[in-house]
Amino acid sequence: MLRLATPGRQRFVQSTALEATFGGGEANVAVSLANYGMEAEFVTRLPRNDIAEWCIAELRKYGVATGNIARGGSRVGIYYLETGAVFRPSKVVYDRAGSSLAEIGPGMIDWRRVFEGAVWFHWTGITPAVSQGAADACLEAVTVASQMGLTVSCDLNFRKNLWKYGKAAGEVMPALVEKCDVIIGNEEDAEKVFGIKPASFDAEHTGGEVDGAHFEEVCRQLSAKFPRARKIALTLRGSLSADHNTWGACLWSSDGFHVSRRYDITHIVDRVGGGDSFAAGLIYGLLTRDDRAALEWAVAASALKHTISGDFNLVSVTEVDALAAGNSSGRVSR
Amino acid sequence: MLRLATPGRQRFVQSTALEATFGGGEANVAVSLANYGMEAEFVTRLPRNDIAEWCIAELRKYGVATGNIARGGSRVGIYYLETGAVFRPSKVVYDRAGSSLAEIGPGMIDWRRVFEGAVWFHWTGITPAVSQGAADACLEAVTVASQMGLTVSCDLNFRKNLWKYGKAAGEVMPALVEKCDVIIGNEEDAEKVFGIKPASFDAEHTGGEVDGAHFEEVCRQLSAKFPRARKIALTLRGSLSADHNTWGACLWSSDGFHVSRRYDITHIVDRVGGGDSFAAGLIYGLLTRDDRAALEWAVAASALKHTISGDFNLVSVTEVDALAAGNSSGRVSR
Amino acid sequence: MLRLATPGRQRFVQSTALEATFGGGEANVAVSLANYGMEAEFVTRLPRNDIAEWCIAELRKYGVATGNIARGGSRVGIYYLETGAVFRPSKVVYDRAGSSLAEIGPGMIDWRRVFEGAVWFHWTGITPAVSQGAADACLEAVTVASQMGLTVSCDLNFRKNLWKYGKAAGEVMPALVEKCDVIIGNEEDAEKVFGIKPASFDAEHTGGEVDGAHFEEVCRQLSAKFPRARKIALTLRGSLSADHNTWGACLWSSDGFHVSRRYDITHIVDRVGGGDSFAAGLIYGLLTRDDRAALEWAVAASALKHTISGDFNLVSVTEVDALAAGNSSGRVSR
Amino acid sequence: MLRLATPGRQRFVQSTALEATFGGGEANVAVSLANYGMEAEFVTRLPRNDIAEWCIAELRKYGVATGNIARGGSRVGIYYLETGAVFRPSKVVYDRAGSSLAEIGPGMIDWRRVFEGAVWFHWTGITPAVSQGAADACLEAVTVASQMGLTVSCDLNFRKNLWKYGKAAGEVMPALVEKCDVIIGNEEDAEKVFGIKPASFDAEHTGGEVDGAHFEEVCRQLSAKFPRARKIALTLRGSLSADHNTWGACLWSSDGFHVSRRYDITHIVDRVGGGDSFAAGLIYGLLTRDDRAALEWAVAASALKHTISGDFNLVSVTEVDALAAGNSSGRVSR
Amino acid sequence: MLRLATPGRQRFVQSTALEATFGGGEANVAVSLANYGMEAEFVTRLPRNDIAEWCIAELRKYGVATGNIARGGSRVGIYYLETGAVFRPSKVVYDRAGSSLAEIGPGMIDWRRVFEGAVWFHWTGITPAVSQGAADACLEAVTVASQMGLTVSCDLNFRKNLWKYGKAAGEVMPALVEKCDVIIGNEEDAEKVFGIKPASFDAEHTGGEVDGAHFEEVCRQLSAKFPRARKIALTLRGSLSADHNTWGACLWSSDGFHVSRRYDITHIVDRVGGGDSFAAGLIYGLLTRDDRAALEWAVAASALKHTISGDFNLVSVTEVDALAAGNSSGRVSR
Amino acid sequence: MLRLATPGRQRFVQSTALEATFGGGEANVAVSLANYGMEAEFVTRLPRNDIAEWCIAELRKYGVATGNIARGGSRVGIYYLETGAVFRPSKVVYDRAGSSLAEIGPGMIDWRRVFEGAVWFHWTGITPAVSQGAADACLEAVTVASQMGLTVSCDLNFRKNLWKYGKAAGEVMPALVEKCDVIIGNEEDAEKVFGIKPASFDAEHTGGEVDGAHFEEVCRQLSAKFPRARKIALTLRGSLSADHNTWGACLWSSDGFHVSRRYDITHIVDRVGGGDSFAAGLIYGLLTRDDRAALEWAVAASALKHTISGDFNLVSVTEVDALAAGNSSGRVSR
Repeated sequence: MLRLATPGRQRFVQSTALEATFGGGEANVAVSLANYGMEAEFVTRLPRNDIAEWCIAELRKYGVATGNIARGGSRVGIYYLETGAVFRPSKVVYDRAGSSLAEIGPGMIDWRRVFEGAVWFHWTGITPAVSQGAADACLEAVTVASQMGLTVSCDLNFRKNLWKYGKAAGEVMPALVEKCDVIIGNEEDAEKVFGIKPASFDAEHTGGEVDGAHFEEVCRQLSAKFPRARKIALTLRGSLSADHNTWGACLWSSDGFHVSRRYDITHIVDRVGGGDSFAAGLIYGLLTRDDRAALEWAVAASALKHTISGDFNLVSVTEVDALAAGNSSGRVSR
Repeated sequence: MLRLATPGRQRFVQSTALEATFGGGEANVAVSLANYGMEAEFVTRLPRNDIAEWCIAELRKYGVATGNIARGGSRVGIYYLETGAVFRPSKVVYDRAGSSLAEIGPGMIDWRRVFEGAVWFHWTGITPAVSQGAADACLEAVTVASQMGLTVSCDLNFRKNLWKYGKAAGEVMPALVEKCDVIIGNEEDAEKVFGIKPASFDAEHTGGEVDGAHFEEVCRQLSAKFPRARKIALTLRGSLSADHNTWGACLWSSDGFHVSRRYDITHIVDRVGGGDSFAAGLIYGLLTRDDRAALEWAVAASALKHTISGDFNLVSVTEVDALAAGNSSGRVSR
Repeated sequence: MLRLATPGRQRFVQSTALEATFGGGEANVAVSLANYGMEAEFVTRLPRNDIAEWCIAELRKYGVATGNIARGGSRVGIYYLETGAVFRPSKVVYDRAGSSLAEIGPGMIDWRRVFEGAVWFHWTGITPAVSQGAADACLEAVTVASQMGLTVSCDLNFRKNLWKYGKAAGEVMPALVEKCDVIIGNEEDAEKVFGIKPASFDAEHTGGEVDGAHFEEVCRQLSAKFPRARKIALTLRGSLSADHNTWGACLWSSDGFHVSRRYDITHIVDRVGGGDSFAAGLIYGLLTRDDRAALEWAVAASALKHTISGDFNLVSVTEVDALAAGNSSGRVSR
Repeated sequence: MLRLATPGRQRFVQSTALEATFGGGEANVAVSLANYGMEAEFVTRLPRNDIAEWCIAELRKYGVATGNIARGGSRVGIYYLETGAVFRPSKVVYDRAGSSLAEIGPGMIDWRRVFEGAVWFHWTGITPAVSQGAADACLEAVTVASQMGLTVSCDLNFRKNLWKYGKAAGEVMPALVEKCDVIIGNEEDAEKVFGIKPASFDAEHTGGEVDGAHFEEVCRQLSAKFPRARKIALTLRGSLSADHNTWGACLWSSDGFHVSRRYDITHIVDRVGGGDSFAAGLIYGLLTRDDRAALEWAVAASALKHTISGDFNLVSVTEVDALAAGNSSGRVSR
Repeated sequence: MLRLATPGRQRFVQSTALEATFGGGEANVAVSLANYGMEAEFVTRLPRNDIAEWCIAELRKYGVATGNIARGGSRVGIYYLETGAVFRPSKVVYDRAGSSLAEIGPGMIDWRRVFEGAVWFHWTGITPAVSQGAADACLEAVTVASQMGLTVSCDLNFRKNLWKYGKAAGEVMPALVEKCDVIIGNEEDAEKVFGIKPASFDAEHTGGEVDGAHFEEVCRQLSAKFPRARKIALTLRGSLSADHNTWGACLWSSDGFHVSRRYDITHIVDRVGGGDSFAAGLIYGLLTRDDRAALEWAVAASALKHTISGDFNLVSVTEVDALAAGNSSGRVSR
Repeated sequence: MLRLATPGRQRFVQSTALEATFGGGEANVAVSLANYGMEAEFVTRLPRNDIAEWCIAELRKYGVATGNIARGGSRVGIYYLETGAVFRPSKVVYDRAGSSLAEIGPGMIDWRRVFEGAVWFHWTGITPAVSQGAADACLEAVTVASQMGLTVSCDLNFRKNLWKYGKAAGEVMPALVEKCDVIIGNEEDAEKVFGIKPASFDAEHTGGEVDGAHFEEVCRQLSAKFPRARKIALTLRGSLSADHNTWGACLWSSDGFHVSRRYDITHIVDRVGGGDSFAAGLIYGLLTRDDRAALEWAVAASALKHTISGDFNLVSVTEVDALAAGNSSGRVSR
């Protein structure tokens, strides 16, 4: 997806140029994993035009394989971003109608070939939200991945301004999520998609802190609903203002329930892609360390994302390691 | 339409920001006329989102009335522009699939109310190229305008990369053009839309000069085909390179055939919107002076357009008058 | 007025370009009101040159009527702005000597025609500070508006670096303010202009909090001095640093004295125009709701202003409503 | 003077930022001479504010002494610049009303101290055009310089949009010019200021070539009118378009009349300051070589100016030497 | 190499930012070939720091393999570029002292592994100019490539400001060039490196045209000196000004001598990398078509390079084909 | 040194341009002192190229004398800067290998001539870290300055990524520091260079506050080791995050030990050069007021530095006076 963001804190109506980068849930995860030195590939559908070539070159720049992208359809999806400040929220205007991905359908991608030699498949709830065809292609991919023995993870990623093709998230997502080994979401997704919310927590009350303890019950209910899932992780964002959030996460598995350290992110540079950077951090973490360490690593990685402009979390393993180890002083490195 | 152009002479793949302005055939004509002190209104269909509000504010900035724009649909159409140099052509990537205008249909705009008090209606061949609905709405507008006694003008404006909804320009345009009092085109449009071309001129041979005399016959044939048309004007562009064009036009009416002065535009700043600036200049000219003077004024106005970045021709009557009077030295005004 | 601001936090001496926007007390109020969907017109005096045309186009962009601007004189007034940080204050360098407004005088604007059909006239203390002629023209306008039954409001807006034509604010302002129905000021204006200050509050002590309760007495004294005023509102800014202010206001009327919610603005984007955005919010609020709600709406509107770059408060009624209703989390809207 | 130029070829109404540099006739000459390794000082009057400090720092950057600048008054003069293209002329909007220099008067600068140890004083016709006080101060300076034995040179520099204080150039300039040893002008100045023009040349016919031979007669008449002048030089600009000029000059002295090589400047970067760069080149040339060589050096220096953005001619002696020696191929130096 | 270029036509002393891209002879060739769909790899030595990582990411973006880059040493080489205009030459300031490549030596790269599966090795005369170690490593590479049966090509690329380690080009280059199958140079290289120049042509006379016919003799002499070379190609640049060059080439082989079409490049965007784009075009051409067609393709590719900013020639096979087929009108593609 | 910084908070890999300014320990101190109205000169070694001329022009802009800079060697040293955010540290990549300063040696600068008429010589620990030659030249300068009776001050300025020529700081620095009258350092330098650290303070614990009281002992030990030093000052930075530091300092002299006010710098603009701005403030303070006031002045000056982008602390005496007097509210000055 092409991301067109107003410079600085400008409103759309003030702008004369838009910063052009690329992003989107799954692409963001792929870039993070490539950054961490893993082989990562992004599979999607793009038209045959220069904007698509530009997108592919950017992915390649960050080390992501692009050889299985299907080509066809008429446009690259866009999202417009106006970055907020203090009480003024950032605004995302989705512009995905008629995009090549929205017009994808089953059979357009040879998932068996794509998954050959792979060990993990990750998808997000944004894809099935775009169109029936995208939901169908996603189900096809999840099914093949599952059959071929890949670990399948998903990020629920509920977006109320998508889901406009006549079905609700709650109708479409269960069939997809039930094939997942790892489920990731934020503090609101489980409620918005499946109606599962903490008993004692008012999810609307976002101005204050978000206490991880309230979410063990949410994880348990998700686990009951989707028994295949071995791990369930939820990010916990406290929105004090557009510039200042708290950030943490919890991870439930059969071994227990962990709540991470909570970061106080006082001068946010860019919070879009925060959830994706957590998902990538968790995948990397689960492949390289134990559950608790993986959770802390994923939270550190995604806390760092808030200091990077653009969707992609351009940090190294060394940088995440340093923050996960407690070095948060921001002292100049020279 | 949102115009997203790479800065300087960058290629898409090199860019990190896109210059964001607004444009499109009919909007460009409206801005020119407002600039010349005429009451001009732009009527289209836009979604209810911040990008549309931004577009409306820009039109308002240049004095164009926007009160009759229908609101609905899901996106603002886009065109991407990469400005060429020397042998490298500029590239336009249309991104209009699913736009609010593409999904317009008859009945969405109350043309009787729009045209109340108006004397002139101008449309371009880009609108019926976008979708069947847009073609239908255009026909509706032309019909009402004609019934209400407005002068109707059109710019044939053939774009081969549009016209993708299953009909050819030659099937759709005749019913629209036959209601027009003034027909405007470039040296290729009549051939591309209606198959009418100069006997002795090879339209593919664009590297050299374009001689106006060859086009009198084209005008006659157009006149025979569309007897309502009182005036037929064709712009004549000689493309020596992406930076250097010649520019002139011819005008046919029952009074005779005129070929304008030819301008040598040696350091083009932006040639997109050149045809629209001619159409606006001609409308203004025909309303304020005789045919020959109107033609020369329109050519001077549109020659100046090539020195202005963006789609809009931001020049004043005084500036066009000066060039039409022969002052082309570009000496500093201080 | 042309506003020339250094980019980012640059000092003047570091700059190679200046951000060029337009602003000024009354223009800022007009833009806000147009944004809120009200008919607003800005009346001033501008020269006949391209800089003035540019200014008019910008006002038109934001929906402000400009048809009664008098044209003459030799220059557009300017203010230079260097945005501060933390302990370093922002700097405003006024450059209004010889401007068309400074050389305005009575009789140059036909106020009777201007006010036809209008219900409200707003002026600020900056205008009479510029020159004797501007003060005279302002008095003329206030007198006509008052005679024609418009509600007249003023913002005291004391600027010590203006008032250089030989008269003190205290000599000129009373004759103007006494014809006002609504008086607006900040926590210092009443003292600087009329010598009225809170008994128990040290206005110089701006580093700490500003308690609204201390200002009821100021309002009472203003009311005693200007008995025509039905409402008196004061904004209350606590300057913790150039990046971090608190912001609130109080409103006195015959019905009682209200102190608003206090906002903690932790990452200011641009605080210039804050007072103007309050005035506009109050005018809108008083025309659409009761006193207390109007005060809260005005404070929310002007708190949002601090998140917008430039003088103009480019927010919608919906956005102000949301903040006034307590939604200050800055969570991404998507 | 602060120079505020629109970026690229933008029109004022399109701009959101203005490029801020400093310039003006005498300052431009001083910078050139400092660049060539000569001791040069710029004497003017500036206010006590941050914009003036910025101006002084920029002059210092280019090696110009600034120790005798008088401080006072209220503003730094400005000129706005919109760079043209092809047939569209560049536009200069002067904004000097009320500037510190416009309000200068005799006695504000101690010219005896300024000229101590100096050998040359250069002034331009822009200064006496600004105000009576500036004309008086200029006359004072010229008189003192003359008494102290400095070589005095002037650039006639006629600007029709200045000269607004009630006197014509022809009334004021003679008393100043008659004390000059070297008179410099362009192909129009002698006519515009003193009514002296070539018999056989139509100065309005600027679109074509300017033949130096026609100007010997102009020089002779100037010499007859101002017998003190030992050298008279005129620059000869042929304006083919805003992007393409020809450029040469002629020099008359008692030794004879020389016409320089003519340069074809096909892709002008910035022509403002061209005349000043010629004056500086001529001063440097006359101090270091014979008349003919000085003329060619001055023309080469000023031809190079057209390739540099901003008012200042930032080229070295080596670079001018190379062009004067005939190396105009523009081959990469590496 | 990091390329730091002043924006627009600024001089270094005017700049506040430098455009940062990457380039250098061999890298430029690799990017072109990858663009044309060939597998291309760039082998060099870079330090272990963030600037090197940035360089690698940019190469990856354009599809170049980077897996065999040796890591070590202390810095990435730089060249500073100031783009000229008209008579003012562009300036390149090399800053390669102490770079990782300057400190490379034999044995640091395992050329046998690098060349496995490869068919072509290309190097340029810039590498042996940097240091003795670089020359030694280059000889090592050429020797291994030759032994392994790769086609070896070189671009003589003489740069007088390099070659500072105590040896002249003429001492070092013969041993390297004698192992080459294809020799490429410009109209000056053969003379500057080997003292071979056209009898009847004055290479210093660069302001005028460069006639290919004069260079057949140069090719013959080169062929006599380096009998292994099967093809010898020379680019022919006519430098009319920094903005306007003519461009062509000639190719000698045992089959005959061909002189290409000559292009008139009237508005150069960036001529740095022109020779490299020719070399890449020739390699691609020789691998895909006959000699004459290969020559024309290479000239068309490199003529297009002059319209692209940066070192890399970001054009597609389709675009080169179109120009080689004679379509040089620069008409908008839409 | 040329400073090449990524714009905004970009990472290197995201950048397409680098902000180019100049800086470095001693240059920063010289600019501050010139700003405060003192005569200051910067003495270094630079090559003969355009980048060096640019550097000199920038120093001159800020009033620093540059007449004794030695010219020779091959390159200007560089440091690359990536500005961090929150937990992400800023990164400095030094690129000084092969710079003209690194290749300086004794005898290249005539220190006797340089110091004629001077009263103070300041150097920093960065110079002897660069190379043996630079250390030798530094010792030469310190020795001559000491002999000629100048006050000699040093800033220990330990940088672990320099010191790569085979000697440790602890081996080189003592001979240099023992000739100093004033020693300046930060809370870590004494430990890193001389192994002297507060008994009760863990210098690694930088996330929290730094209490000045712990450093009296450090000063005493430094004093014992370097008995010539009359004053020893240490800056005390508490790194809460990359955006938020606390800042203070302590000063020890025979008269006693003072700990300054501590500033809370909540929205840092640029912290590079903070220590240098303290050193300059202290030199200015010690020359104009008593110890305690000098310390507070130096801390206020350097707190302000954190609000200025670039290495140079572009603030005036008036501005430092205001902050030192307690005015830290950041209220707009207008």
